Amino acid sequence: MPTFVQILDFIGTFAFAISGIRLASAKRFDWFGAYVVGFVTAIGGGTIRDLLLDVTPGWMTDPMYLICTGLALLWVILFGKFLIHMHNTFFIFDSIGLALFTVVGVGKSLSLGYPFWVAIIMGSITGAAGGVFRDVFINEIPLIFRKEIYAMACVVGGMFYWVCSLIGLEPYICQITAGSTVFIVRILAVKFQICLPILSGESEETK
Amino acid sequence: MPTFVQILDFIGTFAFAISGIRLASAKRFDWFGAYVVGFVTAIGGGTIRDLLLDVTPGWMTDPMYLICTGLALLWVILFGKFLIHMHNTFFIFDSIGLALFTVVGVGKSLSLGYPFWVAIIMGSITGAAGGVFRDVFINEIPLIFRKEIYAMACVVGGMFYWVCSLIGLEPYICQITAGSTVFIVRILAVKFQICLPILSGESEETK
Amino acid sequence: MPTFVQILDFIGTFAFAISGIRLASAKRFDWFGAYVVGFVTAIGGGTIRDLLLDVTPGWMTDPMYLICTGLALLWVILFGKFLIHMHNTFFIFDSIGLALFTVVGVGKSLSLGYPFWVAIIMGSITGAAGGVFRDVFINEIPLIFRKEIYAMACVVGGMFYWVCSLIGLEPYICQITAGSTVFIVRILAVKFQICLPILSGESEETK
Repeated sequence: MPTFVQILDFIGTFAFAISGIRLASAKRFDWFGAYVVGFVTAIGGGTIRDLLLDVTPGWMTDPMYLICTGLALLWVILFGKFLIHMHNTFFIFDSIGLALFTVVGVGKSLSLGYPFWVAIIMGSITGAAGGVFRDVFINEIPLIFRKEIYAMACVVGGMFYWVCSLIGLEPYICQITAGSTVFIVRILAVKFQICLPILSGESEETK
Repeated sequence: MPTFVQILDFIGTFAFAISGIRLASAKRFDWFGAYVVGFVTAIGGGTIRDLLLDVTPGWMTDPMYLICTGLALLWVILFGKFLIHMHNTFFIFDSIGLALFTVVGVGKSLSLGYPFWVAIIMGSITGAAGGVFRDVFINEIPLIFRKEIYAMACVVGGMFYWVCSLIGLEPYICQITAGSTVFIVRILAVKFQICLPILSGESEETK
Repeated sequence: MPTFVQILDFIGTFAFAISGIRLASAKRFDWFGAYVVGFVTAIGGGTIRDLLLDVTPGWMTDPMYLICTGLALLWVILFGKFLIHMHNTFFIFDSIGLALFTVVGVGKSLSLGYPFWVAIIMGSITGAAGGVFRDVFINEIPLIFRKEIYAMACVVGGMFYWVCSLIGLEPYICQITAGSTVFIVRILAVKFQICLPILSGESEETK
C-alpha cells in the first residue's frame, strides 16, 4: 500500500511531467524528447538538491518516477486535445506538486543537519528548478524569473516551516503548514495575478 | 601501448569534440569558446553520469580528453574547409563514440552496483548529454529532442546489454553486442531517416 | 574582523551579482528572478567546482553570499539609473572578482591533492562558469565564448601560479602573482580590445 505522501508525490510528479511534455509538444519535440523534458521537469529540482547535499537522487533508487513520466506521456499522446480543457485541474495538481516537493526538500535538508536558511533554498530548488531545466531545454527564458509568484511561494512556505519549528510545533504540523502555505500563496498569486515588481532600472539604456 | 578500448575512446572523444567545435564555429565563437564547447560536448555526458554516481569524472584523472580536444580544435583550424567533405567519416566516428560511450556508461554503473534500469539511463546520459550541453551553449533547442533516433539508440543498446546479461553471456560479449546495437540503430536511423513520432497534441491551441 | 581575502571575496561576489542583476533587468525579470540570476552568477562557478571536487559548496556553509546578493539587488533597485555611469567601477570590481575567484579555485583544488592541470581548469570554472549560467538563464549565447579575453585570463593566471610554484615560491606569493596576472590580462584585453581569433572555417557552408 502506498502511503499518503507517496500518492501526493506521484500526483506532483505526474503534474510536473505533464507540464514539461505539453511545452515540449508545443515545440514539436518527438516522443523521446518530450519524455526526457517531462522527466527532467519532474526530477530536475530534486536532483540538483541531492547533488548539492551529496546524496543519491531519489529517482535512481525508485523507478516510480520513470513509470510516472511514461504514464504522463501516454496521457498526452492519447488525450492531448482534451488537456487544454483541463487547465485548471493541472494547475491544481501542479500546485500540489510544488507544495509537496518544497516540503520534501526542506525536510530532507533538515534531516541531514543543514541550517534552516539552507533548507529553505533546497526546498525552493526542489520545487522550482525542474521548471528552469524545462525552459532551458525548450530554449525559452525560464518562466519563474518573469511571471507570477512561483518560487517565492516555496520561499514563503519554507519560512512558515521555520517559524512553526521555532515555536516548537511537531514536525508533521510544520510540514502541513508549510505545504498549505505554498499551495495557498500559489493559488492566490495566480487568481489575483500577483506579480513581483519588474526590475527595469536600465532596460532602455543598455540596448 | 594504449588498449583497444582506449583507442576507441580517443576516436569517440575526437569525433564528439569536432562536432562541438564545428557547431561553435558556425556561431562564430572564438578559439577558446570553440575549445570549451568541444570539450564539454565530449566529456559532458560522462561528467553528469559521474556526478550522479558520485565518483570523480574521468577527465579529472586523465589529461587525454583535454589533449584530444586540443587536437580536434587544431584539426578544425587547419582543415576546416575540408571537413564538410568528410561528413560521412565524422558521422561514422560520432556513431562509434556514441556506441562506446553508452557501453562505458552502462558498464560503470553496473560495476558500482546499480540496477540495470539505472545503468541504461546512465549509458544514455553518457552518450547523449554532451550534445545537449553543446546545443544549450550555442543557444539552440537540443537536437536530440527533435531529430532522428539518437539517444534512443543508446536506450536500445542498453536493453540489449541487459538481455545478453540475463541469458548469462560473458560481460565482454554483452558489451560488444550493446555497442554494435547502438552503432547499427544509429546508422539505420540516419540512412532510412527513421524518426520517432512528433508530439503535436496541442501545438496550435497553445499559441 | 573580516580578513583581507574575505573583503575581496565580498567585493567579487557583489560585482558578479550586480552583473547578473543588470543583465536580468535588461530582460525585464522580476525582483526574485533578478536575485536568482545574480546569485547564480556569483556562486555558480564555485558550485560547479565544488560538485566536481565532491565538497560542499561554500555558499551552503556561509550566508554571506546570500546577503551580499541581496545588497546587490537593493543597490540596483535604488541606484539603477546611476549604475551606467559607474561602468568603469564595476568593470574593475568584476576583474577583482575574476582574479580572486580564480586564485581561490586553484588553491582549493591543489589543497585537495589534484594536479596543477586540474587546478587551472577548476580556477577557470570558478571565475567564468557563473557568467555562463547567467547567459543561459537570460537565453543568450554565453559571452565568454565570443568576446574579449575573459576565461583565458583565468587560464593564464593559473599557469603563472604553476610556474611560481615550480620555481619554489611561497604559496601566498604564487597567489598574489596569479591574481595580479588575471587582473592585468583582463584589463589589458578590454583596454586594447584583444580578442582571440574567431573560428570561421565553415560558417557559410553549414548554413
